[in-house]
Amino acid sequence: MNLLDHFLWTAGGASLLALLFVLYLARYVLSKPQGNETMARLSRHVQAGAATFLKREYSYVAAFIVVIMLVFAAIGVLNPMFPEKDLQISWRTSIAFLAGAVASMLAGTLGMTIATRANARTAAAAESGGVKTALDVAVSGGAVMGMGVVGIALLGLVLVYWLFEGQPAIVNGYAMGASLVALFGRSGGGIFTKGADMGADLVGKVEAGIPEDDPRNPAVIADNVGDNVGDVAGLGADLLESYVEAIIASLAVAFIILHIPGQPEFVKAFPFFVAAIGIVASAVGVMYVRIFAQSNPQKALMNGTYAAAILSILGVFGYTALAGKPFTLSGVEYSMWGPAIACVVGIISGSIVGFVSEYFTSGSYKPVRKLAERCQTGPAIGVTEGTAVGMQSTFLPVIVLGVAVMLSYHFAGVYGVSLAALGMLATTGMVLAVDAYGPIADNAGGIAEMAHMDPKVRKITDNLDAVGNTTAAIGKGFAIGSAAFAAIGLLSAFMLAVETARDIPLTMSLADPKIMAGILIGAMMPFFFSSMLFRAVGKCADLMILEVRRQFQSIPGLREGKEGVEPDSTRCVDIATKGAINGMLLPGGLAIAFPVIMGFAMGAEGLAGFLVGSIATGVMLGIQTANSGGAMDNAKKYIEEGNFGGKGSDAHKAAVVGDTVGDPLKDTVGPSINILIKLMCVIALVLAPLFA
Amino acid sequence: MNLLDHFLWTAGGASLLALLFVLYLARYVLSKPQGNETMARLSRHVQAGAATFLKREYSYVAAFIVVIMLVFAAIGVLNPMFPEKDLQISWRTSIAFLAGAVASMLAGTLGMTIATRANARTAAAAESGGVKTALDVAVSGGAVMGMGVVGIALLGLVLVYWLFEGQPAIVNGYAMGASLVALFGRSGGGIFTKGADMGADLVGKVEAGIPEDDPRNPAVIADNVGDNVGDVAGLGADLLESYVEAIIASLAVAFIILHIPGQPEFVKAFPFFVAAIGIVASAVGVMYVRIFAQSNPQKALMNGTYAAAILSILGVFGYTALAGKPFTLSGVEYSMWGPAIACVVGIISGSIVGFVSEYFTSGSYKPVRKLAERCQTGPAIGVTEGTAVGMQSTFLPVIVLGVAVMLSYHFAGVYGVSLAALGMLATTGMVLAVDAYGPIADNAGGIAEMAHMDPKVRKITDNLDAVGNTTAAIGKGFAIGSAAFAAIGLLSAFMLAVETARDIPLTMSLADPKIMAGILIGAMMPFFFSSMLFRAVGKCADLMILEVRRQFQSIPGLREGKEGVEPDSTRCVDIATKGAINGMLLPGGLAIAFPVIMGFAMGAEGLAGFLVGSIATGVMLGIQTANSGGAMDNAKKYIEEGNFGGKGSDAHKAAVVGDTVGDPLKDTVGPSINILIKLMCVIALVLAPLFA
Repeated sequence: MNLLDHFLWTAGGASLLALLFVLYLARYVLSKPQGNETMARLSRHVQAGAATFLKREYSYVAAFIVVIMLVFAAIGVLNPMFPEKDLQISWRTSIAFLAGAVASMLAGTLGMTIATRANARTAAAAESGGVKTALDVAVSGGAVMGMGVVGIALLGLVLVYWLFEGQPAIVNGYAMGASLVALFGRSGGGIFTKGADMGADLVGKVEAGIPEDDPRNPAVIADNVGDNVGDVAGLGADLLESYVEAIIASLAVAFIILHIPGQPEFVKAFPFFVAAIGIVASAVGVMYVRIFAQSNPQKALMNGTYAAAILSILGVFGYTALAGKPFTLSGVEYSMWGPAIACVVGIISGSIVGFVSEYFTSGSYKPVRKLAERCQTGPAIGVTEGTAVGMQSTFLPVIVLGVAVMLSYHFAGVYGVSLAALGMLATTGMVLAVDAYGPIADNAGGIAEMAHMDPKVRKITDNLDAVGNTTAAIGKGFAIGSAAFAAIGLLSAFMLAVETARDIPLTMSLADPKIMAGILIGAMMPFFFSSMLFRAVGKCADLMILEVRRQFQSIPGLREGKEGVEPDSTRCVDIATKGAINGMLLPGGLAIAFPVIMGFAMGAEGLAGFLVGSIATGVMLGIQTANSGGAMDNAKKYIEEGNFGGKGSDAHKAAVVGDTVGDPLKDTVGPSINILIKLMCVIALVLAPLFA
Repeated sequence: MNLLDHFLWTAGGASLLALLFVLYLARYVLSKPQGNETMARLSRHVQAGAATFLKREYSYVAAFIVVIMLVFAAIGVLNPMFPEKDLQISWRTSIAFLAGAVASMLAGTLGMTIATRANARTAAAAESGGVKTALDVAVSGGAVMGMGVVGIALLGLVLVYWLFEGQPAIVNGYAMGASLVALFGRSGGGIFTKGADMGADLVGKVEAGIPEDDPRNPAVIADNVGDNVGDVAGLGADLLESYVEAIIASLAVAFIILHIPGQPEFVKAFPFFVAAIGIVASAVGVMYVRIFAQSNPQKALMNGTYAAAILSILGVFGYTALAGKPFTLSGVEYSMWGPAIACVVGIISGSIVGFVSEYFTSGSYKPVRKLAERCQTGPAIGVTEGTAVGMQSTFLPVIVLGVAVMLSYHFAGVYGVSLAALGMLATTGMVLAVDAYGPIADNAGGIAEMAHMDPKVRKITDNLDAVGNTTAAIGKGFAIGSAAFAAIGLLSAFMLAVETARDIPLTMSLADPKIMAGILIGAMMPFFFSSMLFRAVGKCADLMILEVRRQFQSIPGLREGKEGVEPDSTRCVDIATKGAINGMLLPGGLAIAFPVIMGFAMGAEGLAGFLVGSIATGVMLGIQTANSGGAMDNAKKYIEEGNFGGKGSDAHKAAVVGDTVGDPLKDTVGPSINILIKLMCVIALVLAPLFA
């Protein structure tokens, strides 16, 4: 058994381990009591709504999948003959593509199924055992998503890689499949959640004057469903994509390295090993949190995350010491330690990006407090200041990312850039567990409210939510940072692939007008794409508002809260579902079509410029929207804590406007842009042989 | 006399002609009656406020100028020796730099002096002679700015070019001087105008409930001063900069072309000729408007603009037929018609960008009407939709710019890219006349209101404002488009200069991590820069609000409008001036420092990437902010016309919030970003010998 096979087995084994762990966690969560009948019923509503949405969404995505598979098959038939079959797109590419898409959908369905069942159980646990028991249930539920994502993604990748003998023109399809599902999942989920949220808030809180999560509000169930489809399934698909792409970009570069005889197989085995050790480390991290949550939940979450990161770093260095080999890339020789160092560069820079996000969006620091203060002058100043905070927050992360790109490149060439992404994402299982537990706690709070449970339960779930926030901020930093790195890694792999196919060194020169024009057009994409998402959210919210108003007017006794009168939640879920599906098709189609059009119209050079431009504005808008939205959200919360007049004051009213502006920024536009840039890069990589 | 001297004389002659025309126009405006004593007094207030601001602003700018001159002189002494003295920075560079700065300041002072004297005269003309007479005065006032800018800029350039024998390392300094003044002018003016405007509106209209431009409001004079320092002096410096840079980027490339023996002097003479014919054409256009305004003002403005454009195109082609010669650049041979065609590509693409802006920001089309409709759902949805409109509006302009880059390159290489910018800017005299007349009409309206003139006068001035709007939109398109082209032209010239100095072909490859890191960091600059401007406007508005509140409380009878009680306008002007000066120093300093830091830290490659990144996001943010702001402004106006409930309705309140958010976007951030990217490119070009 050679080194590579060895590590395919290792990675496969690790992914199976992850899935066994998932099985255990899922059974554990499901074994918990889900409280009284009302709670169970509310939870069932959310489950049904989320399941319906996913089914509808995936059925539309399926249509895209079929079309793209046919296109790949057609390209395979008409394929220009390359001297090497590794460079040929074929029907096999469509199989890999399908596998990637299915893996993402499976992981999303699994994670959401458990998450929507963990909500009532978390509330029940909060009632019976307090914050620590509730944390245990919620984190276990989140970990099903986290470990499920990495387990399924890696298992699928190992199978595809093994089946198609690692031919990049085929294996790359796997990443594209995952990316496609992620784009629709994130943008569709994002439109759903914010359409429902804004609709629920604007009529419920503002017009009807009833509190948040009040069971009388017909849109509340839809809002809770939205948390799951956006922040659980959407985020899961997002990180799954980055994870897969980081591995595949590394493998694509490794393939090029091995193109020259005498290079070590180590470069091919390394990404698999990082993924494998990351899974083990994440499992340890999750167990750590579950065991030590009893004493100090916040510390447990933080330490679990650190433990997982440190374990993977140790593993990566240990492995390098055992099996590392120097290698040559683009004529430069790199040390055997290069890849391991690049991983660490990724982890460190991802953490810094996370901490900066935390600084700019948490109510504990100056920017949000200042923003809250400025809200006293009115909504316009609040929104302007919120925008300014987001824009300002791009500075440090981008400098860090820039330096990290150069460092990782210095230590391992373009191979290092992908590995930096992989380093950040190695512990995705752990990071995602912490991230996905937030919406579970949120939902538990919603159910507590709607089921008229003891207010202390709501307090516990709110507390749970807060506890995870700092750790989740690091997760967000990883998501943004890894998206940038994964995209740059894919772009580099694309350029290398074109170079290999053409068999001449490429000069992707800035002085080439095609590249300059490509950069401008690419830079426009995230803006145009965002405008479509904004519109879709607005449209969806509008329809939701009309429906909620209609129900308040036409269902007697609803507004007054008469016993036994229930709103028609299903209709609201239905509206959000339709709005999300309709809203995601056009931007999604555009994201797929544009790189193809650019490639055919302006060749590999124009396409490379296009990708660079889209990465440039995409990363900035991604950071700005996430942090503007986060800052406005927390400024509102800061005021609600009693500062600057507290709830009901003019400052609060202004902050509510700011929060409503910020909601689609941080939950729809920002995350979708991260995927947009990755998807466009992976499409370019997959189709590289055509444009070469 | 050789060809070049010939055209230096032609260009010099044309610029003198422009200045004579300015003299005539200025005397014409000043010869008009300025109405009654109140009007004259109000006008004097505005004059004094504007003059004070300019003086203070320029004195700070002077400090920057002195430092930069010293730096240039020092570099000259420590200069690495290049084989050719043309490539050496020296104390002469600092002289050219000074000349550029002085030219911009002179033009700004001249234009503003007349503009602030034309306001009361326009109001008086409206009272005595109606819309046509008023248009005549206002356009003549605006034309002083327009023709003054091109006359002074070109005369200075011709003198510098002649004095230093066209050595690029020296002459480039002229552009940098103009750029420096423009940055401070635009950002300082922008902060002033929006700080004053928001302050005046938020207390006056919202809190005190008094109408716009009411003489009781202490901030109204400051608001009127702001229109002049922002939209007259600021815009003038902006276009002057683009104009100078387009010529200088063309000349820098021409220098490289002539580096190879046997190339025609034609390439050096051509930019001067385009500038010269543009001046003549603009003068004709202005006269056309003044003569034909009697019958149909709107048509006259439009036709005058077209006439100037067509005349320059004819002139450019005629000249090419007479003197054109084919030339070789970077090893490619181009036809003698190439430069002329590139100019036309610029004019056409600039017009398209303008028409698209008009479509997205005018109340006559769907986007603004839809936005107004959406305002019914509240301020948050309004702001979101306004943002979406701006983002959406980037699509077509950017595609057009991308295609235009490729076309102009196709016909004349990188030389063509600068010429496309020059083509757009040839008729700057005319375009700026139409643009600058807007604030004059606006001011006239303010004076009419404050002096309690017959309401029909206000109606006429409002009408005047509206008449020029479409034509002004084209001007904005030219400003945005030419900024993109000028920046790309300067960037290309920078890369050629580095190449020439190094004497080896450059590979500015996207695969270079320094370039990728540079692109990311550059892409961040416009975001970070914008955040500082937002903050500065907010801070300035805050201080203004406090002051206005204070005056309303402490000056008895002011709020009630008691006879003889006057607000302390001077203090408000003072606050805005201080706010603007304080607010512009940091972002301005950063804009100067960053390219230098990048050049030293990451070499010419990192700097080139940095510039590309900043152009990419700068152009997008420039278009988005301008059009988002414009759309929100006009949505408000559309509602005020009686749609969706008209003034005072919920939709109107939401639109007012949207407009307030949009104001700093379109009048501070957007225009400043245009200059930011040009300034950073011109600094790189000037310092190219250091980074080579």
